[in-house]
Amino acid sequence: MARYLAFDIGGTKIATGFVTLEPGASPRVEDVHTVPTEAVRGGNDVLQRIVALAAARIGESDDIAAVGIGSAGVVDPDTGAIVSSTDLMPDWAGQPLGAAVAAATGLPVAVVNDVVAHGLGEAVHGAGRGYARVLSVGVGTGIGGALIEDGCAVPGAHGVAGHIGHIAHGLGQGVRCSCGTRCGHVEPIASGTGIGTLYNLKKPAGAPPASDGKAVAELVAAGDPYATQILAMSARALGEALGGAANLLDPDAIVISGSVVRSGDVWWHALREGFADGAMALTAPTPLLDGRLGGDAPLVGAAVDASRRTDHACSPVHNCP
Amino acid sequence: MARYLAFDIGGTKIATGFVTLEPGASPRVEDVHTVPTEAVRGGNDVLQRIVALAAARIGESDDIAAVGIGSAGVVDPDTGAIVSSTDLMPDWAGQPLGAAVAAATGLPVAVVNDVVAHGLGEAVHGAGRGYARVLSVGVGTGIGGALIEDGCAVPGAHGVAGHIGHIAHGLGQGVRCSCGTRCGHVEPIASGTGIGTLYNLKKPAGAPPASDGKAVAELVAAGDPYATQILAMSARALGEALGGAANLLDPDAIVISGSVVRSGDVWWHALREGFADGAMALTAPTPLLDGRLGGDAPLVGAAVDASRRTDHACSPVHNCP
Repeated sequence: MARYLAFDIGGTKIATGFVTLEPGASPRVEDVHTVPTEAVRGGNDVLQRIVALAAARIGESDDIAAVGIGSAGVVDPDTGAIVSSTDLMPDWAGQPLGAAVAAATGLPVAVVNDVVAHGLGEAVHGAGRGYARVLSVGVGTGIGGALIEDGCAVPGAHGVAGHIGHIAHGLGQGVRCSCGTRCGHVEPIASGTGIGTLYNLKKPAGAPPASDGKAVAELVAAGDPYATQILAMSARALGEALGGAANLLDPDAIVISGSVVRSGDVWWHALREGFADGAMALTAPTPLLDGRLGGDAPLVGAAVDASRRTDHACSPVHNCP
Repeated sequence: MARYLAFDIGGTKIATGFVTLEPGASPRVEDVHTVPTEAVRGGNDVLQRIVALAAARIGESDDIAAVGIGSAGVVDPDTGAIVSSTDLMPDWAGQPLGAAVAAATGLPVAVVNDVVAHGLGEAVHGAGRGYARVLSVGVGTGIGGALIEDGCAVPGAHGVAGHIGHIAHGLGQGVRCSCGTRCGHVEPIASGTGIGTLYNLKKPAGAPPASDGKAVAELVAAGDPYATQILAMSARALGEALGGAANLLDPDAIVISGSVVRSGDVWWHALREGFADGAMALTAPTPLLDGRLGGDAPLVGAAVDASRRTDHACSPVHNCP
């Protein structure tokens, strides 16, 4: 049994909590506190507050083995520094997050991307438990993901592995993706934002625009036939793209989380239909599983990452120290 | 230094040769013989002839460490049996290839898919040498591929991993893929066959049809503007799809082989352009490398597979014994 201080650092809020990992038992997440990120104050300011928060929280407990951090941005898994970030967190790129928290706490610190932390949590202790190779997919404002192999996150050559939102699908052709391309990625038409975009592109003339996927899902719940068609079209496209990803990766399971998976049966049915069409006969039975840990997933995953790395349980190919 | 008997079993021909692997040296491929597969005679007949051939070739040499086989079809990496196959090799599915050759030769036998053997050869001793995680792509009559991690082929949950031809791209929508779908895979518009299909779909009325990508490439070489446009469109689509795959996998390098890569500068230029558009800023620099081993790649890869497996060099996640 070991106890970890875990961070989940996003563009809007920073959550911290204590996670206890015990072989054969479910992880215990306790004393979760949340503070606003106030990202507009800049990366230096955000880092200083995180360091102070880490020092304060470590003082609450005398049996912390290590600190696990899931953070927005592309992370260098070896140093725990932030390699790049979006405009949502100005000056976050370049911050020496891992080193700063290690200096403030005197503890080993492991840093991964927040979407990867989420995926690790679900793969090891959530819906993906028992599956060796898991593709984790997060469908929220954007679409992110992670590849988990034997309980280790695969960082990839540039810390980018798992960016499932940025794979090709024809429905996205001409629609601008958050990465800048218009060549046809799945994110700009299948994320929460993308469902709204797709609805506004295809809605009947005169119908009021929908702000996002939640608004479209509400129209669907109210019986709107256009909204139902658009939501299904979007989910089907995501399913087809995931079917192709399953042909390429052939994972043991695919875990799907995020706000959009709460869009109801229309969404899930079309997703599964698209997946069955895009997947080959041998990969079509790959389980598509609904995430199970909810908001705890990134904290659990950050703790798992810290635990696995301090135990040297990940092979060098996964860049774990 | 160790010597292996290697097989490359395809739908048309069966090649055998002796491969010498020596640390720090290039592999030596010797005494390559080729016989027709005569697949129409059925899987039992093909297997019997392979077994006889293995026994005969082992008799030529008294220092063979193991037999490495790359074979058409989906292979069970643990047993070396054929899990499934296409109509090109009737009754090949179900054949206990590994066990039969082991019984006939008294040697350890490792079997992988032929496209995977090709990828292993290129990743370990060809264009991908020195890169830890390699995506190998073969663009010929169809489009196949393999994921190679630290010199081990990743089989995936169903032996399917690496099927890069069966990922989504909008240009393929409505065009029937060899796997049966019309939802939009990249193979039916970017393989050698697919380039011909695309040309015939888009050619000016009255122009004679092109049989395949080679015919289209010949029209391009003769200055035909339509053929040039189609070849570029096809290569650009493949590049965009590979860009998306790079975002998902983030490999250290992508090695591209097969007859279609000989289509000239128009093809390579459009492929790289599409890749740059489909890849994110961080993955865009991923090297796209031209395969280097040519026809030797599958024999080298089959020997590498036999060598790595008999040395227990691959971790359990790769299903190596």
